[in-house]
Amino acid sequence: MRTEICERLGIEFPIFAFTHCRDVAAAVSNAGGLGVLGAVGFTAEQLEVELAWLDEHVQGVYGVDLVIPSKYEGKGIDGLSPEELEAKLAELVPQEHRDFAEKILADHGVPKLPEDEHHNQLLGWTATTAGPQVEVILRHPKAKLVANALGTPPEDVIKQVQDSGRLIGALCGSVKHALNHKRAGLDFVVCQGTEGGGHCGEVSSMVLWPQVIDAVGDLPVLAAGGIGNGRQVAAAMAMGAAGAWTGSVWLTVEEANVPPAQMQTYIDATSHDTVRSRAWTGKPARMLRNDWTAAWEQADTPDPLPMPLQMMVALDGVKRGHRYPEAAKDVNFNPVGQIVGMMNRVERSADVVNRLIQEYVEACERLNKLNGGA
Amino acid sequence: MRTEICERLGIEFPIFAFTHCRDVAAAVSNAGGLGVLGAVGFTAEQLEVELAWLDEHVQGVYGVDLVIPSKYEGKGIDGLSPEELEAKLAELVPQEHRDFAEKILADHGVPKLPEDEHHNQLLGWTATTAGPQVEVILRHPKAKLVANALGTPPEDVIKQVQDSGRLIGALCGSVKHALNHKRAGLDFVVCQGTEGGGHCGEVSSMVLWPQVIDAVGDLPVLAAGGIGNGRQVAAAMAMGAAGAWTGSVWLTVEEANVPPAQMQTYIDATSHDTVRSRAWTGKPARMLRNDWTAAWEQADTPDPLPMPLQMMVALDGVKRGHRYPEAAKDVNFNPVGQIVGMMNRVERSADVVNRLIQEYVEACERLNKLNGGA
Repeated sequence: MRTEICERLGIEFPIFAFTHCRDVAAAVSNAGGLGVLGAVGFTAEQLEVELAWLDEHVQGVYGVDLVIPSKYEGKGIDGLSPEELEAKLAELVPQEHRDFAEKILADHGVPKLPEDEHHNQLLGWTATTAGPQVEVILRHPKAKLVANALGTPPEDVIKQVQDSGRLIGALCGSVKHALNHKRAGLDFVVCQGTEGGGHCGEVSSMVLWPQVIDAVGDLPVLAAGGIGNGRQVAAAMAMGAAGAWTGSVWLTVEEANVPPAQMQTYIDATSHDTVRSRAWTGKPARMLRNDWTAAWEQADTPDPLPMPLQMMVALDGVKRGHRYPEAAKDVNFNPVGQIVGMMNRVERSADVVNRLIQEYVEACERLNKLNGGA
Repeated sequence: MRTEICERLGIEFPIFAFTHCRDVAAAVSNAGGLGVLGAVGFTAEQLEVELAWLDEHVQGVYGVDLVIPSKYEGKGIDGLSPEELEAKLAELVPQEHRDFAEKILADHGVPKLPEDEHHNQLLGWTATTAGPQVEVILRHPKAKLVANALGTPPEDVIKQVQDSGRLIGALCGSVKHALNHKRAGLDFVVCQGTEGGGHCGEVSSMVLWPQVIDAVGDLPVLAAGGIGNGRQVAAAMAMGAAGAWTGSVWLTVEEANVPPAQMQTYIDATSHDTVRSRAWTGKPARMLRNDWTAAWEQADTPDPLPMPLQMMVALDGVKRGHRYPEAAKDVNFNPVGQIVGMMNRVERSADVVNRLIQEYVEACERLNKLNGGA
């Protein structure tokens, strides 16, 4: 199942693993796939530390996923430092929203963070804050692939990355977005169906993948949304995908830095327990349905703000949920796709890669047998 | 790609075509698949006429799809004729709903039906009205397969159908429903993802199919939701499906009795233009988003009634839309799946069957090549 993009990256299997955890990224890369580290939670300085660690622990190459949205509040405000932009955007957040978020957490008894743990609020959800991350990536030769999560990356970023011999691509949830990516000269697109975790569109993988594959011609399409089993990898490859982009399944691996209580929430959830909601990031994203998502849906409560303002409201909840996952059980941020219903046990990352390959092979053999082959 | 269910039915390809049009059903059966006539629009007398026509025009066998919901208003009211049940249920429909439906149609200038075209309102959306349809089916030996659309069929219906040497199955949108079907002794399940047209659950095909296939063991699973291309058939078969259950694609074939203006609406629509709504039947169903679906979603308008009451409100709109499709362009009932975005031209039914097979073969060859085969 080695495709052209495997050749270009020098990897064995076209299995791409999006994760916020460097241990998982390293394990997948070392098992023959490509670990892709989500950079959105890190400052440039923190990202430097993570990538230095990956350089040391990855034998081959790895990728980095950025979030530079095409549309967000404050876009076009130039010449500000990340701190200045944050201060400016903070003025746009109504106190009502901050109070409502605080009330939800307080009602559920989620403790506040210690006073000395001030954190910045933007964390890479804008071009201003993601820009320094790009510079960090370019200093790390094993960081061979860059993906952007919310739209076509800026022209200068594309040029910088490609000139350095790296591949750059972007996610899409529609044919229109895929064609924008192609016109901008990206090296690949990640096409994600609505069943996927995190930011997603409305069209399902089964329907979207073939349309995007047909639309972009020879541009490699990595299939995302709903993949947690090698049968789904086979389905994607049969439809013409150049590889499988996975995310959710890496939340319940041994190496993941997901608190045990939160990991158990994922293990227990069924495919019917997710919702597409703006309640955390301001853009529609798939996550587990809980009291937090329900609270922002009521007619008599504030509507979620646009990106990145809603995350400036919600980030305290993310941090408190990570710190106190037991208390935050019903109001935690649990971004995950519908595949969560098939995530029923904790596995080692390398075992997941091997399982995906094994199940892929079995699915191909099933088809061959059906078609009168051996 | 001949599976065991093909053997049992004596058909060539496991391509099942759900349609309300006998010409389409006949064309698919005669092309090697199985045409399945949707019975919900017909009285027992009308169904008798349709099946007699099919007996004459189908060389092999065909199927019939019923709607006996597991849950509906009026269930358990025994000993009434369909007419008496209808009168009783009509009392439960608030005048406010009838007035609102009439206002939507009037605001869009959709003419009323001629006075002499009185029609009954239930049309098979209950066990009482679907019961006589079963008796009709049993009189037609070529009607070899019965499927029920909204839940496990009643025990006596299962027994009647199986004792007559026919196969009976039912649709499902969750593992739980599939297991109910298996426990009831059905011969197959049709597992439909949320992207499918008409009544559907919330979980996508990519995620749902493998879970249902694993859950029901050796019971054949026909994959539904999002299939309009042979690549999707290959994906389904690779994941372990016993066949492909299709519906939407038969709305834009030459033989379909869909008015040209409405067919054009389907041809023009993209995969982003559907919505899952209770506005026509009272249960969540996928259809094109338009002024009718939007009207019932507003906070200050009546909420859709449960099945079958909402259809008793909406049926006049269905009939008027069918009669005056130009006028009803923005308020018509257009049940269809997200695959509508790939339905871009009118084809002959037999050509669709052949195309599905051809694309299926190409997808299998793509996989083989990827795996180092010929």
